[in-house]
Amino acid sequence: MKQGAVVLLSGGMDSTVVAYHVRELVGSEPIEFISFNYGQRHKKELEYARVTARALKGEHVLVDLSGINSLVQGSALTSSDIPVPEGHYAAPTMKLTVVPNRNMIMLSIAAGLAVSRERGMVVCAVHAGDHAVYPDCRPEFIAQLNEAIRIGNEGFGEPELVAPFVYQTKADIARRGAELGVPWGDTWSCYKGGLIHCGKCGTCVERREAFQLAGITDPTEYEGSLVT
Amino acid sequence: MKQGAVVLLSGGMDSTVVAYHVRELVGSEPIEFISFNYGQRHKKELEYARVTARALKGEHVLVDLSGINSLVQGSALTSSDIPVPEGHYAAPTMKLTVVPNRNMIMLSIAAGLAVSRERGMVVCAVHAGDHAVYPDCRPEFIAQLNEAIRIGNEGFGEPELVAPFVYQTKADIARRGAELGVPWGDTWSCYKGGLIHCGKCGTCVERREAFQLAGITDPTEYEGSLVT
Repeated sequence: MKQGAVVLLSGGMDSTVVAYHVRELVGSEPIEFISFNYGQRHKKELEYARVTARALKGEHVLVDLSGINSLVQGSALTSSDIPVPEGHYAAPTMKLTVVPNRNMIMLSIAAGLAVSRERGMVVCAVHAGDHAVYPDCRPEFIAQLNEAIRIGNEGFGEPELVAPFVYQTKADIARRGAELGVPWGDTWSCYKGGLIHCGKCGTCVERREAFQLAGITDPTEYEGSLVT
Repeated sequence: MKQGAVVLLSGGMDSTVVAYHVRELVGSEPIEFISFNYGQRHKKELEYARVTARALKGEHVLVDLSGINSLVQGSALTSSDIPVPEGHYAAPTMKLTVVPNRNMIMLSIAAGLAVSRERGMVVCAVHAGDHAVYPDCRPEFIAQLNEAIRIGNEGFGEPELVAPFVYQTKADIARRGAELGVPWGDTWSCYKGGLIHCGKCGTCVERREAFQLAGITDPTEYEGSLVT
């Protein structure tokens, strides 16, 4: 009988909130928290993922995808030759941070794990703020991929693909996180992966904004001041 | 402008015929032939893939997915503890050879490569003989995943997913291969990965049968005699 979930956990604030949300949802059922090393320069986030997986008493599955590095030329997320763009996350320059088809690749592997472990769900943290930049974060993509997973694993205990915040903003996620008591210090957003959050890259700007809009005190220590 | 194709090439007879088929189709446009090392025990097929990629003047991209090995417990394709089942490929025992969600994982990565290289197509060799055993080889899965790839990469030069033999049998593929002059000695089918084809495992039985049904002399050297 299927039970529990596989949760994509990057170590950022969105997927950490989803992790706490799913733990509440499934109670004591098993959860695998799956993280990907795809050669990102902010590899630091993986340590934060490990901390959350342990806090939530789930298995942490780290998948090494650095072999697909050669596929993602042109992404500032993986190439040290390209500077990480600064400014707001929803700006056109953020397309530079797109790793082609990244979500489908990660969700496919998570679905494979869910089939193998007989979990009922694969859960990911895409939200409305991502839609403008990443086509593979839109509700229609999640719906389509969910159907592909169902058809492709029919008869093998196909898991459901769930994106609980796909119609919500990052501020909504911050609010839900506060409700769940998520320890924000266990989350990492900055694409630059320095000692503390840079405060200037797309995800830092977005993180600060989310806390502000949610009316929650932002406990994060940032290097610079907010670029607007 | 998009041109050329990314072709999934395992080194088996089906994908090798597809490789020759696509080379004819796209003329001198660039092709990436993508192969996956997922910890299969018949790793030998990858050498055959390399030979075909070179013969067809395409780049051979080998992706190391052995990190997902831990996901596929229970598959005779990757575990040396489980014997490779013998007998006909379409038998229920062949489900043992299923790596969960394998096709979606490989096609997602191939699609990422196609987006990155601006190729028009991702081509794979699934055929009607696979439908009974593998749900992710059915036409409805290919159609659904094609749509997910389109939506997930909209605005980034989304490639089309093409499965030219999805409604045809392996015998049809053998016939098409003969037409194209595919050098059968450059293809490897046996799941056991020995010195010569075992002649008894599912893919060997299927290979022999395909040549017989197509009325083509089978040049393959087999260890045993056909198990029926």
